[in-house]
Amino acid sequence: MQQVRKPKRAARSEMIAGKPARNRRSAEQMLVELKQRLRELSDLNAASDILNWDQATYMPEGGAGARGRQRATLNRLAHERAIDPALGKLIEYLTRYGESLPYDSDDASLIRVARREYQKKIKIPPDHVERATVHCSASYDAWTRARPANDFATMVPYLERTLDLSRDYSSYFAPYKHVADPHIDHADEGMTAASTRTLFGELKRQLVPMVQAICEQPAADDSSLGQTFAKAAQFDFALHVAECLGYDLKCGRLDLTHHPFCSRFSAGDVRITTRVNENDLGDALFSTLHEAGHAMYEQGISAALDGTPLGQGVSAGVHESQSRLWENVVGRSRGFWEHFYPRLQRIFAEQLSPVPLAAFHRAINKVARSLIRTDADELTYNLHIMLRFDLELKMLEGQLRVRDLPEAWHAAMQADLGIAPSDDRDGCLQDAHWYSGYIGGRFQSYAIGNILSAQFYAAALKAHPDIPHEIVSGEFGTLHTWLRDNLYRHGSKYVPHDLVERATGEAMHMRSYLSYLREKYGALANSAATDQQVVRYLNHPA
Amino acid sequence: MQQVRKPKRAARSEMIAGKPARNRRSAEQMLVELKQRLRELSDLNAASDILNWDQATYMPEGGAGARGRQRATLNRLAHERAIDPALGKLIEYLTRYGESLPYDSDDASLIRVARREYQKKIKIPPDHVERATVHCSASYDAWTRARPANDFATMVPYLERTLDLSRDYSSYFAPYKHVADPHIDHADEGMTAASTRTLFGELKRQLVPMVQAICEQPAADDSSLGQTFAKAAQFDFALHVAECLGYDLKCGRLDLTHHPFCSRFSAGDVRITTRVNENDLGDALFSTLHEAGHAMYEQGISAALDGTPLGQGVSAGVHESQSRLWENVVGRSRGFWEHFYPRLQRIFAEQLSPVPLAAFHRAINKVARSLIRTDADELTYNLHIMLRFDLELKMLEGQLRVRDLPEAWHAAMQADLGIAPSDDRDGCLQDAHWYSGYIGGRFQSYAIGNILSAQFYAAALKAHPDIPHEIVSGEFGTLHTWLRDNLYRHGSKYVPHDLVERATGEAMHMRSYLSYLREKYGALANSAATDQQVVRYLNHPA
Repeated sequence: MQQVRKPKRAARSEMIAGKPARNRRSAEQMLVELKQRLRELSDLNAASDILNWDQATYMPEGGAGARGRQRATLNRLAHERAIDPALGKLIEYLTRYGESLPYDSDDASLIRVARREYQKKIKIPPDHVERATVHCSASYDAWTRARPANDFATMVPYLERTLDLSRDYSSYFAPYKHVADPHIDHADEGMTAASTRTLFGELKRQLVPMVQAICEQPAADDSSLGQTFAKAAQFDFALHVAECLGYDLKCGRLDLTHHPFCSRFSAGDVRITTRVNENDLGDALFSTLHEAGHAMYEQGISAALDGTPLGQGVSAGVHESQSRLWENVVGRSRGFWEHFYPRLQRIFAEQLSPVPLAAFHRAINKVARSLIRTDADELTYNLHIMLRFDLELKMLEGQLRVRDLPEAWHAAMQADLGIAPSDDRDGCLQDAHWYSGYIGGRFQSYAIGNILSAQFYAAALKAHPDIPHEIVSGEFGTLHTWLRDNLYRHGSKYVPHDLVERATGEAMHMRSYLSYLREKYGALANSAATDQQVVRYLNHPA
Repeated sequence: MQQVRKPKRAARSEMIAGKPARNRRSAEQMLVELKQRLRELSDLNAASDILNWDQATYMPEGGAGARGRQRATLNRLAHERAIDPALGKLIEYLTRYGESLPYDSDDASLIRVARREYQKKIKIPPDHVERATVHCSASYDAWTRARPANDFATMVPYLERTLDLSRDYSSYFAPYKHVADPHIDHADEGMTAASTRTLFGELKRQLVPMVQAICEQPAADDSSLGQTFAKAAQFDFALHVAECLGYDLKCGRLDLTHHPFCSRFSAGDVRITTRVNENDLGDALFSTLHEAGHAMYEQGISAALDGTPLGQGVSAGVHESQSRLWENVVGRSRGFWEHFYPRLQRIFAEQLSPVPLAAFHRAINKVARSLIRTDADELTYNLHIMLRFDLELKMLEGQLRVRDLPEAWHAAMQADLGIAPSDDRDGCLQDAHWYSGYIGGRFQSYAIGNILSAQFYAAALKAHPDIPHEIVSGEFGTLHTWLRDNLYRHGSKYVPHDLVERATGEAMHMRSYLSYLREKYGALANSAATDQQVVRYLNHPA
């Protein structure tokens, strides 16, 4: 029966391809057309991202109005193409051909992923995309002024409109169990509000007593990081470290912005941004390592996948796992600073020569209940995330009005972290996310990333137990190569849970993360105790 | 008869507008649709220009390949829209309505200019646009490496292809009197190879004896400009001066590049670029003033014209008139430096305190037969232009093969300027133009701009004789306002010769330019003579 049908399918394929050919060739011709269409789409998206990068780095303020419109036009044209019925037909014709190829092959994966994206995107009306883009651009622009002015009132109408647009987005994917589900699935395919709540419930149960125990000890002294450090030297050092990790500057660069981000324009152009605070040595340094982690993921994707939907990181959570792996698991480890601290001490001799390595290592790993997510330590960071996740779910559910957000923020901070901001600048105005995009699905990825960062690192260590010693020598090639071979190069070929299992041999779990935290903070507590004994000995010699 | 026809036209208009309305409303609705279509086109062009700016300023080298493709996609989409038959019909329906409005009104001008552009663009096949964009991007990229390597051989196949593409372009506008005419008309509407040759014949006749006479005098000493000047301080000073002239940094910025240019992304975002040479004080300074002149023209265009074909300078020649007016007529004048030189001397105290104003003024106006167009003085600059104009005409005519260009360049330099480059880096590889776009119509605008710069300045002076005194006080408002009111704000409303007549009361002529040159170089010769007497007196006191 299938044999008999074949000529018929061939005939349909030939119609698409525009000239007669054997069935196999015809599918290949269609594949060429599919790739052309997807590349055009990728070009439009890249152009929009370049306009966004420019807006966040160098654009003069007078450009803001037109820039919103320009990006909206590009996004609308891209969306029109992404939902073009001719593209849908091409994918439909190619589906069976794709299934005949090895699952892992570039072409099978391309057809599979293009089909999934197409079926998702046709649900979103093009005029919604344009309205959302224009609105988010204007909102982000307003936020860049409102945050320093501590002016939440100005942002209320923006956020209310964002909330409406976010609910509209969800409605296109109805039915769903929770209004946030389409947003969460968009960021972290396969996750839902319910599964994330379960995960976060367990994470919170484990973290709260750890934070409690650490905060009962004397706090680490991080005053050494709060001295005055020349901005240019901080910038240069951060860039140097990113390059040492493996961030390729022939295909990337570092620039200044309000809120650091990483942006991929092509396989050969993946850029990161940072901000520099003269009185916080950690700000530029760790935000650069964080974004370099994202960028190394993007730079490591097989060049053959460039210009297709496979040529990008697979999910926000897996992406965050890489930023957090390089920023925290590697970048805040003792071994890492055994290599880099002498150089940092040379650069900032006056400020850091009185600060021994152990004290510096404790300072950059200080656990404290603090106000700002991006400044938070690895442990309490998760509490910041879970708080935001709860609040955005409540806003989407209609249980929390936008105008009541500052109060709800205050109460949640008090309950979860035991402190609360005195203004909105350090409260609900601090993150760009809700002011530059949808409300919903924006924050859970950070905690998922933390969990996965340790799971990936543990798997790399299992394969190459020498990695910690290499890090002490400033060598990151083995780790980088393992990550590239097992994660990066695949781009979006596999859905997140499949990728995690292929790379680590297990589904996502919390064990590696919790034992990583226990081991690290246990060692830090011992180091502090030892040093205190030393100090006592020095003050009162036997 | 016209009265009777009206209802019929109304009915057709209503069909376009999509719902019944009175004739007048219907035309207005069509006008709204026309503006929407043109704005989308403007957004795509702006996006392409932003990608180009990024490529020439900050893009890492790895991005070059994809960037060419990305711009090609944008340009193809823009061109598809620019030649959309639906746009043509809309313009056709609106033409009579436009003619019923005052000629000077924004709407009448918009319909008139949109019609002209449409009729021009439908002659160019979309695939030509894409091929030309991809090729020019690759060629420019190759040139950025070939020039420092003095490697003309690498560029030969690129240039040959460019020449083919340039002839293809002309062929779409056949019949023409000269193969370069479509290119020249594109840059300087109304001009042809023949009219430009006539103009340049006269200019050369006048200039050659002037250059001869000046070069027989002792050359001005410009060694003071060749000392070592810190790059950052040069950059800052150039930006400061541009801002004093009236370049608005809230709607603009200055960045570094290989080959300086000005780019408009919207009314609120008009950027300039420069290059800084540690051993040439004039390079960054005058290229910045040059680009600031272009930018002030673009910034001065009525904001109401933004996002339409009227929202840009009218022609390359008129544009150059503004860069040259601010760079040379103002920026190399004695009065200008009476104001700015003390500041420059403070910044570079060690280098410039021994150099009196008069000597500095002579140095920046030194006339010498030199190799590099962009470094040339005002007088010989025109000879460089005319040489290029001749060579590109010969290449287009097929009288000069690409591979013979270095030799022809050498011979022409020897004949016209009396010197010749020892390598191609300082010869036919020096300008980006042929390596980043068509061959043809690329250079004549500079000499036209020189001629017009003096004509516009003379007209402004006639209206406001105090302008030279204001310049001595560092005040540029009167001149800037006159230029904005008489030139800038009109954008592309009027064809170049109409604009010139409206602003100056006369057709383009050479009298103002020649008397400006005679007056300036006469005064400089006298100043040199006087100083020489002073020097003699100092050496041999009476």
